[in-house]
Amino acid sequence: MSALFKGTKMPVSPEGFLSSGVHSGIKKQKKDISLILSTVPAEAAGCFTRNKVKAAPVVWCQEVCSAGGKVRAIVTNSGNANACTGQAGYENAKKTAGLAASLIGCDPSEVLVCSTGVIGVPLPMDKIENGVKQAFSILSDSEEMFLSALEGIMTTDTTLKIATSETQIGGKNVKLRGMAKGSGMIHPNMGTLLAYVATDCSISKSLLQEALTESVDETFNMVSVDGDTSTNDTCLVLANGLAGNAVIEERGPDYENFKNSLFNVLKSLAIEIARDGEGAGRLIEVKAVGARSIEDAKKLAKSVVSSTLFKAAIFGADANWGRALCAMGYSGAEFDPAKASIAFESDGGSIKPFQDGDPVAFDEGIAKKALTEKEIRILISLNDGEFEATAWGCDLTYEYIRINGDYRS
Amino acid sequence: MSALFKGTKMPVSPEGFLSSGVHSGIKKQKKDISLILSTVPAEAAGCFTRNKVKAAPVVWCQEVCSAGGKVRAIVTNSGNANACTGQAGYENAKKTAGLAASLIGCDPSEVLVCSTGVIGVPLPMDKIENGVKQAFSILSDSEEMFLSALEGIMTTDTTLKIATSETQIGGKNVKLRGMAKGSGMIHPNMGTLLAYVATDCSISKSLLQEALTESVDETFNMVSVDGDTSTNDTCLVLANGLAGNAVIEERGPDYENFKNSLFNVLKSLAIEIARDGEGAGRLIEVKAVGARSIEDAKKLAKSVVSSTLFKAAIFGADANWGRALCAMGYSGAEFDPAKASIAFESDGGSIKPFQDGDPVAFDEGIAKKALTEKEIRILISLNDGEFEATAWGCDLTYEYIRINGDYRS
Repeated sequence: MSALFKGTKMPVSPEGFLSSGVHSGIKKQKKDISLILSTVPAEAAGCFTRNKVKAAPVVWCQEVCSAGGKVRAIVTNSGNANACTGQAGYENAKKTAGLAASLIGCDPSEVLVCSTGVIGVPLPMDKIENGVKQAFSILSDSEEMFLSALEGIMTTDTTLKIATSETQIGGKNVKLRGMAKGSGMIHPNMGTLLAYVATDCSISKSLLQEALTESVDETFNMVSVDGDTSTNDTCLVLANGLAGNAVIEERGPDYENFKNSLFNVLKSLAIEIARDGEGAGRLIEVKAVGARSIEDAKKLAKSVVSSTLFKAAIFGADANWGRALCAMGYSGAEFDPAKASIAFESDGGSIKPFQDGDPVAFDEGIAKKALTEKEIRILISLNDGEFEATAWGCDLTYEYIRINGDYRS
Repeated sequence: MSALFKGTKMPVSPEGFLSSGVHSGIKKQKKDISLILSTVPAEAAGCFTRNKVKAAPVVWCQEVCSAGGKVRAIVTNSGNANACTGQAGYENAKKTAGLAASLIGCDPSEVLVCSTGVIGVPLPMDKIENGVKQAFSILSDSEEMFLSALEGIMTTDTTLKIATSETQIGGKNVKLRGMAKGSGMIHPNMGTLLAYVATDCSISKSLLQEALTESVDETFNMVSVDGDTSTNDTCLVLANGLAGNAVIEERGPDYENFKNSLFNVLKSLAIEIARDGEGAGRLIEVKAVGARSIEDAKKLAKSVVSSTLFKAAIFGADANWGRALCAMGYSGAEFDPAKASIAFESDGGSIKPFQDGDPVAFDEGIAKKALTEKEIRILISLNDGEFEATAWGCDLTYEYIRINGDYRS
């Protein structure tokens, strides 16, 4: 097992989930097949890339999730995205589901399939077949196998992205555990976000989907590493009900409680993905407050965190509030620049270079100290309403260019 | 005069325009005040940044252009953008117009004012005043003074951006001459596009504006260096009528002829801006053909040329067609990926790695040879309609990060 995993502890392990990860030969050395199994059929919900060019496994997962039936497993391969591979790609995704289903003893429509890696290359089905068989044979509820499954979905992520949550619902202990891979990549053609949450909560499929959709909107959809939406982005939740709580079938305190737990898991994963963005040296959090609407708040926060110029400034530890204001200006959001304020904060200090529409002199020494920290928070106050939103991203570095420009040389 | 200007020849010089450029001390050494004067009142048209945060001079120019009167001059300062400077900034733009007007002997409403440079810093009005006086005193129709005026609007552009055109309208020789600055910048806080075209054509103000708006849509609005829309972007045309053609007052062959000339001038300037993008090593031209609508074609071409991942791939001379297809997928355009083809072309060769929805094997050696050229053309065929559009951009390089991240260190 990789040194990356050393000392990782998982305090929370939802009931009835087994995992495994193996090396099948798609990648040179690292694990490239991952299997997550629920011992009983689970409700499933999914959120998928909005890219019009969807990888074959995304199409398959959308079909499975919309069909309405329960789900037993998620099979993932890394090293090959099975994207832009035409009808043959779809058949391969379906065949992968069939392979796992025959081992599990369920219908192929109960198996979700994800891929990440290089695009436009046919999936090596012999390796997939052997890998899935091998992975099935070593399924376990051990932490080691959970980490193997995580390793199996990773490409060149440099950190483990795991988040857990535990809450009481109807007197029962409900657990959630999520894993994700972000867009650290050297060899694949594009970074893909994959995130899976397993929970033993008992909840209806429709509410599970609502909780996921609402949470993804405020978490993964507020993350930008480079503005490129992949063909394979997929977020899945399986809820197998083994916690034994009365099934959540309507909105109310129990639903809110569960949704809050799910939100927290996804938020942690989203932040870790931003922090581990390609070549990233600094995590950037942009919070817009006092906006006229939630949509305006989201647009403002996301526009600033996505601005190439602003990201390059943060790399240079430069309190370039003008670039933030400029990005706000082209965000499409309604706001009054004359009422806006911008602050930069970190554990190293804070400055407020723009207040109520006017530039304010600030100490360059304090600014430099604040901006050389690893986590930079930008607070945008619109003073124009009651809505707020937060977005996460990272700085734009030489390393990003090296990873994405030079990797074939 | 800078070595940059050596040997520059301007075959076309429209009647009745004088120019000059001087160093007033806003910038350390280079010329920072530029004056363009029409000896007779000229019709004026303008296109401006869509950024909600508009610099004071942009607001002033919009007022001048929409007021409907004729215009005598364009005054530009570089080194200070007069952006995010509040009401005082607007008063300073107006005061600059007043200064020039008093020297020319016209109304302030006949003087357009532009600024580019650092934002959030008050305009040094003493320097502006001296500079404008000095510039007025040396106005000339010489090539040398035209180049001085161009130098006065430049920041860290590494190339001269000049384009000219000459055509016959109603038996008269009509000339156009344009200058532009792009987004090469080290010290200013954001790159600004400024472009001015002087012509001796006689044309109504409304048709001049229509010709400009339509041409800008297909030229400057199809250029992306880093996706950040500045607070100061401004494109102005002055038409003084001294060519003596019958005034163009309606659409028809004369209008089309003029518009075509204007389009060619703006297109040349737009391409030069893309080629000289910050840190750029390669010009990228993306042409989308066979789209369902002109809007779809524009979205597809622009999405590919703006993709950070694709730009980094071109820097690495990597024929990463998957990133192009991915950017097409999130462009918001309607198209059928299964009918699409993608080709890479340059003077070094061409490859077609994706055809009719399927990946096609290609020779990596030929690809590398084609992509190490200075101008790369990407042809996207949608095979889905009759519309096409072209966008221009540049690769994303280490130098971009250095310029935009390190410049304060």
